[in-house]
Amino acid sequence: MPGPLAYLNGEFLPRSSATLSVDDRGFVFGDGVYEVWRVISGQPFEIDAHLARLQFGLAELRIAPPDIVERDVFVGVAKRLLGASSLETGEATIYLEITRGAAPRTHQFPIAATRPTVYAVANRFEPPEALRARGARAITTTDIRWLRCDIKTVQLLPNVLAKQAAADAGATEAILVRDGVVTEGSHTNVFAVDGGVIRTHPANNLILHGVTRQLVIDLARSLDLEVRETAFTRDELQTFDELFLVGTTTDVMPLVRVDDHSIGSGSPGPIATQLQAALRARLDAGDRRIAAVAS
Amino acid sequence: MPGPLAYLNGEFLPRSSATLSVDDRGFVFGDGVYEVWRVISGQPFEIDAHLARLQFGLAELRIAPPDIVERDVFVGVAKRLLGASSLETGEATIYLEITRGAAPRTHQFPIAATRPTVYAVANRFEPPEALRARGARAITTTDIRWLRCDIKTVQLLPNVLAKQAAADAGATEAILVRDGVVTEGSHTNVFAVDGGVIRTHPANNLILHGVTRQLVIDLARSLDLEVRETAFTRDELQTFDELFLVGTTTDVMPLVRVDDHSIGSGSPGPIATQLQAALRARLDAGDRRIAAVAS
Repeated sequence: MPGPLAYLNGEFLPRSSATLSVDDRGFVFGDGVYEVWRVISGQPFEIDAHLARLQFGLAELRIAPPDIVERDVFVGVAKRLLGASSLETGEATIYLEITRGAAPRTHQFPIAATRPTVYAVANRFEPPEALRARGARAITTTDIRWLRCDIKTVQLLPNVLAKQAAADAGATEAILVRDGVVTEGSHTNVFAVDGGVIRTHPANNLILHGVTRQLVIDLARSLDLEVRETAFTRDELQTFDELFLVGTTTDVMPLVRVDDHSIGSGSPGPIATQLQAALRARLDAGDRRIAAVAS
Repeated sequence: MPGPLAYLNGEFLPRSSATLSVDDRGFVFGDGVYEVWRVISGQPFEIDAHLARLQFGLAELRIAPPDIVERDVFVGVAKRLLGASSLETGEATIYLEITRGAAPRTHQFPIAATRPTVYAVANRFEPPEALRARGARAITTTDIRWLRCDIKTVQLLPNVLAKQAAADAGATEAILVRDGVVTEGSHTNVFAVDGGVIRTHPANNLILHGVTRQLVIDLARSLDLEVRETAFTRDELQTFDELFLVGTTTDVMPLVRVDDHSIGSGSPGPIATQLQAALRARLDAGDRRIAAVAS
C-alpha cells in the first residue's frame, strides 16, 4: 500500500520528504493564501467556490496563479492525494497553500521569475457529531486581526491566539469582537437567530467570506427562512434564540453557551438543527451531483 | 573556502540544504517571531536589545524560548555563521526566526513536546549611502495591520504589500497611516522635526518598538535635542522641517518627498544628518565597546 503523499511544486512526494526552502516567503512573511476542502467519498465539496476564492486572493496579493487553480488540474491532484492515502471513502479534507515562493528576503515582491510555492495534502476527517448533538461553548475575545480578513491568507497568528484562548477556557471556539461588534470566529462564521430571523455579519473586509457561510444562507432561504446580513454586538449575544458557527469542517455547530451566558434554551435550537440537516444532505449529495455533471 | 551556512534547529548546514517541514507553523500560520541584527566588522550590534525583544515576543506568543535567546549561544551561532560566509569584516546582517515548530495543522497550540523551529543566517549588507546623501521618497498608505505590531512576528503581508506599493511608485518606503495618524513605515520607524522638536509615534501596540528608534531617541537627547513621543497626522507631514526613517538596516534615512509634497528644504535636513553621524559613530564603536566589556 502506498504511503501518504504530499503535492509540492508539481511533484508527488512521500509526505515526510516534502520540505520547503527556508527562504520561502510563506515562512518569512506569511506571504501566501490557502484553502481547505471538505471531501466526501473521495469527492471534494464546493470545488469551484474554493477555487474562486483562491483566485481572488492570489489576484489581491498579485501572486501569479499556478495551474492548480484550474479545476481539472486541482481535481487530478486531489484524486491522487486521496487515493494514495486511502481516502476515497468516508470523510477527508484537502489543504492547499500557495505562497509567493522562495527568494532572497526583501519586503517588496521578488523578481517576476520567482515561482510560487504550491503545497497540497489530504487528511482523514471525523466530523464532531457528539459535540454537535450537545452543542458547543464559545468565549468572546477582541478581534485584533488586520483589515483584509476577506483574503484567506496564512496571516493566522491572531486566529491561533484566539483559538488557544478558547481551548484554555475549555471552549470550542473564540468569537471575535471588533469595536463591540461580532465579526466571526477564529476559523468559523457566526450566525444568530433573533426573533426567527437569521443574522450574520455582512461579507466585507472584516470577515472571511466563508464558502459554507454562503451555502448556509442559500439553504436557509431555500427553506423560506429569513436571512439578514447585518452585524450584531457582543451585548446582543445573550438575547438571541440561537447562535451557531458555520465552516468547512464545522458544518453548522450550535452554541449553547458564550462566556458565562446560556444561549436560548441551553440546547441546540431548531433552526441550527434544520440547517445542519440540510447541509448534511448537500454534503452527501455532492459527489452524486458532480457525477451527474460529469456524465 | 567553506560555503555559506545556515543554522537550523541546532545544526549548521549548507544553506541550500536547510529545509523546513511543510507542517512548520511559520509556513502554515505565520506563527513565529524574528529579529535582524546589524553586524559591523563581525560584531552584531545591540545584541541584548534585540534578544530582549525576541524574548518578549516569545513570551507574548507563549513559545518556549530555545537556547539561542541566551546571549552566549546567540553569539556563538552568529560567529560561526559570519565566519563561514567570510563576513568578519565590513557590514552584514544576521536574520533569526523562531516559529512554534512543525506539527499537524490545528489553530490551537500543538502538543507541548513540539520543538520550536530555529533558523538563522548571515548576509552581506551594503548601507544605502548614496540614497542617504540625496534623501529618499516615501508614499503614504493605509495601515491595515493587526493590533499587536509591538510583537515582531512574521505576520508581515501588509508590510509586504505596502513596501511593494512604494516600489511601484518609485519610492523607498511606505508610511503607514491609521485613522489619519502616522504609525510607522513598512519596516522602519518614522521621525519628524517640528519647530526644532523631534517627534515620533509612542511605543504602544500600534508600532514596532524599534531598537534603532530607541537608540536614536537616546542619541538625540544626549545631543540636547528635544524628543517627544507624540504621534502626528498625515496632514501634518508637509508642515515639518524634516522627516526621516529609522531602522536596523536603514540607520537614519532623510525623506525629502512624501507623496506629492517636498519636505522642508527638499534636501536632507541638519538634525537627520547630525543623528545619522551620531548613529554611525555608535555602529563603528560597537565592536570596540563589546571588546572592552569582554576584556
